[in-house]
Amino acid sequence: MNTADLGLPVDVPSTALFTDHYELTMLQAALKAGTADRRSVFECFTRRLPEGRRYGVVAGTGRVLDAVENFRFDADVLGFLRERNVVNEETLEWLAAYRFSGDVWGYPEGEVYFPGSPIMRVEGSFAECVLLETVILSILNHDSAIAAAASRMASAAGDRPLIEMRARRTHELAAVAASRAAYVGGFATTSDLAAGFRYGIPTVGTSAHAFTLLHDSERDAFQAQVDSLGRNTTLLVDTYDVTEAVRTAVEVAGPELGAVRIDSGDLLLVAHRVRQQLDELGAVNTKIVVTSDLDEYAIASLAAAPVDAYGVGTQLVTGSGHPTCSMVYKLVARAESADPKAPLVPVAKKSSGGKTSIGGRKWAARRVDGDGVAEAEVVGTGPVPAELADRQLLVELVKGGEVVAREPLDVVRDRHAVARGNLPLSAAQLSRGEAVLPTEYVHLRSGS
Amino acid sequence: MNTADLGLPVDVPSTALFTDHYELTMLQAALKAGTADRRSVFECFTRRLPEGRRYGVVAGTGRVLDAVENFRFDADVLGFLRERNVVNEETLEWLAAYRFSGDVWGYPEGEVYFPGSPIMRVEGSFAECVLLETVILSILNHDSAIAAAASRMASAAGDRPLIEMRARRTHELAAVAASRAAYVGGFATTSDLAAGFRYGIPTVGTSAHAFTLLHDSERDAFQAQVDSLGRNTTLLVDTYDVTEAVRTAVEVAGPELGAVRIDSGDLLLVAHRVRQQLDELGAVNTKIVVTSDLDEYAIASLAAAPVDAYGVGTQLVTGSGHPTCSMVYKLVARAESADPKAPLVPVAKKSSGGKTSIGGRKWAARRVDGDGVAEAEVVGTGPVPAELADRQLLVELVKGGEVVAREPLDVVRDRHAVARGNLPLSAAQLSRGEAVLPTEYVHLRSGS
Repeated sequence: MNTADLGLPVDVPSTALFTDHYELTMLQAALKAGTADRRSVFECFTRRLPEGRRYGVVAGTGRVLDAVENFRFDADVLGFLRERNVVNEETLEWLAAYRFSGDVWGYPEGEVYFPGSPIMRVEGSFAECVLLETVILSILNHDSAIAAAASRMASAAGDRPLIEMRARRTHELAAVAASRAAYVGGFATTSDLAAGFRYGIPTVGTSAHAFTLLHDSERDAFQAQVDSLGRNTTLLVDTYDVTEAVRTAVEVAGPELGAVRIDSGDLLLVAHRVRQQLDELGAVNTKIVVTSDLDEYAIASLAAAPVDAYGVGTQLVTGSGHPTCSMVYKLVARAESADPKAPLVPVAKKSSGGKTSIGGRKWAARRVDGDGVAEAEVVGTGPVPAELADRQLLVELVKGGEVVAREPLDVVRDRHAVARGNLPLSAAQLSRGEAVLPTEYVHLRSGS
Repeated sequence: MNTADLGLPVDVPSTALFTDHYELTMLQAALKAGTADRRSVFECFTRRLPEGRRYGVVAGTGRVLDAVENFRFDADVLGFLRERNVVNEETLEWLAAYRFSGDVWGYPEGEVYFPGSPIMRVEGSFAECVLLETVILSILNHDSAIAAAASRMASAAGDRPLIEMRARRTHELAAVAASRAAYVGGFATTSDLAAGFRYGIPTVGTSAHAFTLLHDSERDAFQAQVDSLGRNTTLLVDTYDVTEAVRTAVEVAGPELGAVRIDSGDLLLVAHRVRQQLDELGAVNTKIVVTSDLDEYAIASLAAAPVDAYGVGTQLVTGSGHPTCSMVYKLVARAESADPKAPLVPVAKKSSGGKTSIGGRKWAARRVDGDGVAEAEVVGTGPVPAELADRQLLVELVKGGEVVAREPLDVVRDRHAVARGNLPLSAAQLSRGEAVLPTEYVHLRSGS
């Protein structure tokens, strides 16, 4: 068991507890009914994008693979389930031997997605697949929500680097996953040491207002920082009076001062003033970093300001208004036995209420126009049309229980940049609108 | 070191990595400047409540105590910091010996709070206190946001139990903390097994649509569930046709059927129809559970419907629109040395931009009227007025580095119910409004 690869900066003996109670009671009932081993296909998808968003970003896939690999019921967990009477002894025995042996296909991490995109497909026995529902959805819902916000911010920031710096606004471990997802979406660095430790994301940071307040004067604080961290450091200039602070900063560090950080006020106005002042003081290479509750709109509004880097932010770790992305994990087909030759029967919920799904095991492809720009997300059941054969989106992630598609995070990050770059130009619009690609369904045997 | 008490269902060797890079660079600079050991007071507070909210709920305190107790830099972490050149050798040596030795006072967990309430106060050397900023804020910001949403939902639900059931909509470990915070806010149970394992919160769950779809007919599925889980189980009746499903459910389980669950459609309408049908079938004690994207408003709108329990939800784990609560951790006073007799000097950021703070070490008390109903949150520096002496809110949590105030989660949950009950009646209004208590500042030596 690989406890180091769990997507957490901590040892986790198992991910099996990140599971809803009902997954286990369903297992128990299916074991008794003799239906637990029916060959089954589950798919993850969203019925819609968050309101106004133009595309989604698949993130968390690598963490899902770790979670699936480590999904085991150890003695402690089994003891807890027994003591709480969650399931019966027969089920506990089955759980003790649990190891996912099925297949997982999915959109490669960093890809974009649209309503109905089959982002992940899990195949195996009903029993082994149903148990993974909660942990897979937790990871994809959280990480994809953050990556989507990050992608919009990166788009708005253009060539200027984005620093993820608000671990403090979200759960301490969600923050680590958020840093990872932000990096996938296009962020350059993080303030979160755990994200640096676990994922190798570059970490940055220099000082806060408390450091200035600790000292007898702002000059003392700047001097202390420069003495210790060097002239190339970033001095925080908005504790008292910004103009005075900038003057002091350059006096203390000289024109080689690395950067100043502005964390409050009218950033557009202040950035212009500070740039002018720095230039007048000869600190023409000193950069300006701004960091005050930025979101993609604030970043875009600073496009013409003399800003060199953005620190974000509460709005990142909360998905900029959409902290989750409504992914669901649905049984879409199943056979009447475990026999690999038994035909798969498409299934779907049918009652009213807007929660209906489309049954059947799906493929997906992205159709492009003559210039290589994406023009439709095509989702289908049955054979893939020849003209889409080389545009298929799903790749094999787990084969017979073995993870076959681990990849470095930089590959994922680059993939996202390419995928976003291949969308129609309207994908970069921050205003609320429709998905930039329509989802077309083909060959669907609806209701069958 | 107590690794079992970290507020996580996993072993975490240390919480020291849940820290922003700049905390360590500030430490390095302060060590070099000789200011690291200055006696300091940091306070956690919010400048405002989330828009429209009438009170906040303190949650996560117990997890903060665990995090502080386990905040250590082990060899792995130190090796990472060295390799990445985050701080110098002198600082690494200091970190290797780190153990918080100061004092923490705070609002007891479950209490309500208002803008400016000094929710937690951390005192010790600058160095030992500044390092805790990120992890303390992560925990309080997340957990308090969830508890505040839970409290509103509990208020709307009245005597009907609330089930927390959407681990899948948030990060897998944030979900565990969310279950805990929901319980503090008034929820009765959770679907999250990790929350049951770690915090002893009762877990519940029976089946999902996938279980019905797995079987050849809805009747087969219901029969399988009843055979395994007994007649007292909850059958999910909205996979196909609700009326037919309810009829089948009672045929299979008899009128002793425990409950039916409705997860889609117009819940108000469907609940009335299902209640009537159940009664006509003689299943007069069969309960109705509803579970479709509920928030406090939807819960309130079902007050007159024949509903017995609510399953929530995405809106819970995302704080019902406010997934974080803007708590900050600010240096409010410091001495010029480590000497316990050196006077504390109030300090505060002063620049423009709405981010100013009030300096000085604060006390807080809740003034009540003649009927015991709260009428003001009083925050002050200097001596506590005699009439408020027995209404003080801060309690000692950590003394000389030792946690002195651990308590069972049920005590916290009960405290919240009492605190909410002592607020003016308007606290229960779900509509947007102002904080139900004004925050009054007394004895404040402003600007000093």
